[in-house]
Amino acid sequence: MTQLQSLQNQFNVALKTLELPSEPKLLYEPVSYTLSNGGKRMRPLLVLMGCKVFKEDISQAIHPAIGIEVFHNFTLLHDDIMDNAPIRRGKPAVHTKWNNNIAILSGDAMMILAYQELCKTDSSVLSQVLEVFNKIALEVCEGQQLDMDFETSENVSIADYVNMIRLKTAVVLGGGLKVGAIIGKADAEQANSLYQFGLNTGIAFQLQDDILDIYGESQKVGKQKGGDIISSKKTFLLLKALELAEGEQAKDLQKWLKSDAETEKVNAVTEIYDQLGIRKLAEERMWQYYDEGISNLNEVRGNDVWIEMLRDFSHNLMHRES
Amino acid sequence: MTQLQSLQNQFNVALKTLELPSEPKLLYEPVSYTLSNGGKRMRPLLVLMGCKVFKEDISQAIHPAIGIEVFHNFTLLHDDIMDNAPIRRGKPAVHTKWNNNIAILSGDAMMILAYQELCKTDSSVLSQVLEVFNKIALEVCEGQQLDMDFETSENVSIADYVNMIRLKTAVVLGGGLKVGAIIGKADAEQANSLYQFGLNTGIAFQLQDDILDIYGESQKVGKQKGGDIISSKKTFLLLKALELAEGEQAKDLQKWLKSDAETEKVNAVTEIYDQLGIRKLAEERMWQYYDEGISNLNEVRGNDVWIEMLRDFSHNLMHRES
Repeated sequence: MTQLQSLQNQFNVALKTLELPSEPKLLYEPVSYTLSNGGKRMRPLLVLMGCKVFKEDISQAIHPAIGIEVFHNFTLLHDDIMDNAPIRRGKPAVHTKWNNNIAILSGDAMMILAYQELCKTDSSVLSQVLEVFNKIALEVCEGQQLDMDFETSENVSIADYVNMIRLKTAVVLGGGLKVGAIIGKADAEQANSLYQFGLNTGIAFQLQDDILDIYGESQKVGKQKGGDIISSKKTFLLLKALELAEGEQAKDLQKWLKSDAETEKVNAVTEIYDQLGIRKLAEERMWQYYDEGISNLNEVRGNDVWIEMLRDFSHNLMHRES
Repeated sequence: MTQLQSLQNQFNVALKTLELPSEPKLLYEPVSYTLSNGGKRMRPLLVLMGCKVFKEDISQAIHPAIGIEVFHNFTLLHDDIMDNAPIRRGKPAVHTKWNNNIAILSGDAMMILAYQELCKTDSSVLSQVLEVFNKIALEVCEGQQLDMDFETSENVSIADYVNMIRLKTAVVLGGGLKVGAIIGKADAEQANSLYQFGLNTGIAFQLQDDILDIYGESQKVGKQKGGDIISSKKTFLLLKALELAEGEQAKDLQKWLKSDAETEKVNAVTEIYDQLGIRKLAEERMWQYYDEGISNLNEVRGNDVWIEMLRDFSHNLMHRES
C-alpha cells in the first residue's frame, strides 16, 4: 500500500466513526445515505496531505478533513435540488429518493455537522481554521449563485466563467490544503502558497471536467455524455466556441443551442467544437492553470515526500478519464 | 430610555454594521431583505442579557448576538420554503419574492454568515460558544423535521409535541442566554441554569403562540386568526382536545379536521375547545413552564438588576398580545 492509499484508508475508517443521531430518521438517514455514497474523497485527502507537508502526525487534521468532506457533500445535496438533477454518483439524489423538503433540511443539518467536526480542531488554531473555512464556504455559495445566474445571462465572458468555477469548485481544494497546513503549523506564507496551488489545480480540474463531458469515456465519467451541451451550459468550451465561431458556423451554433434533439445537438455542437479546435484550446488553458499551480507548489518548503505526492496528485487529476 | 431599550438599540445599531458583499446580487439581496424585515430581536437580546448578568461590558457578546439572530432568520427562511408559507412578517417570504432556489442558497449563505459572526467570539471561549451553538443549531433542524413528521403522523402525544417545540423553538432562547453567560465568564452551573430558564420560557412562549393563534387579537398577531386550526396543526390545543373529546364531540372534531370550509372550521373547532376548557388547560401548562423557568432563574447568582430584567422579560412574554 502506498503512503497515499494508507492516508486514504485512514480517512475512510475515520469517516465511518462519524456518529449520527438515529432520530428523527428522515433527518439523518439522508445524511448517512449521502456520506456512504462514495465519491473521490479528494478534498479531505488534501486536508491530510496539506498537514503532512508540515507535520508527520496528522491526528489533529482528521476531524477537520471529515468536516470538509461533509460540507462538500452538503453542497452537492443542495445543488442537486437547485439544478433539478435526479442522479448523484449513479444513485437517486436525496430530493429524488425522498423529497425537496427533506433534502433542504438534511442538507442544513449536514452543514452544521460539518462545523461540528471542524470545531474539533485544536483550540490553538481553531479560529484560524474557521476563518478559512467560513470564507470558502461563502464563496462556494457565491459560485453556485453565479452558476445559476449564467444560465439566463447573455453576457458571460470566459473570465466570468473562470471566476465562477474558482468560487464554486477550486476554493474548497485550496481551502482544504490551507486548513491542513494551518493544523500542521505552517507559517502564513507557506499556507497561502499551498492554497494557491489548490486553487489553480481546482480550476484546471474543473476545465478537465468540462472536457471530459464530451471527450471522456462516458461510462467512466458516470454521467450522460455531452450533458453540458444538452443543457447548453456555458462552459469554457461553449464560451470559447461562441467567441470564435463566425458567419454560418455562428448561426449554426446558435440554432443548435436552442434545439431539443439531444443526440443530434451533442453531435452537431461537438463537430463545431472540433472544427474550431476547442478541445486543444481548453486543454491548453487547463495546463496553464496546472503549471501555475505547480509553481505555487514549488514555493512550499516542507516534507519533500508529501510535496512530491501533491505534485503527482495534481498531475493525475489532469490525466484522469472520469 | 430603559436599560433594556438601550441594549436593544445597541444591538440594532450593531446589526446595521453587518457588511454583506454586494455581489452576486441574487445571493445577498435576499439576506439583507430578510434581516431588515424586523422581528422581535428577542434571541440576540437574550445573548446580551445573559452576558450582562455576569459582566457589565457586553462588547464581546455583540457579534455572537448578531450570529444568533442571523441564524434564527435563516431557519425562518428555509422553514417558509418547507411550509410553503407565502408571507413572513407581513411581507412576501424570500421564496415568494424570488424563488425556491434563491431561498435555499441565500439561506445557506445566512447560516455561514451566522457562523462568521459567532467566530468573532474571543478565542478564550470560542470553542465553548461554538459547542453550544452547534448543538442547538442541529436541534432546531431536528425540531423542524419532527414538526413535518407530525403533519402526517396519527400518533402524536402531548409529550411529543412539547419535545418538538423544545427543539424547534426553545433551545435557541436557552442557547442564546448560555452563549451570553459563557462570554460573561459564568461558571458552567450558572450558565446551565440560565439555559434551563431560557428553555422553559421558550416552551411557555410557544404554548402562548398556540393560544394566541385563536384567542389573540389577530391584527396584532399579524397572522390569519385560527391558522393552526385551518391547517389542522397538531398544537397543544388540538392534541388536548383530541385527548378529552368523547362520543359525538370526538366525531364532530374529527369531521371538522377534514373540512376545507375555513371560517366554519375555525368557529366549530374553537367551540369544541371552549366546551372542553382547552384555553384554560393550555394556559395552565404555559404557566407551569413559566414557573419552572423562574425557579431556574432563581438559582442564578449575578447582577440582580439584569436577573430582574430577565424575570420581567419572561413575564411580559406571557402577557403579550402578539
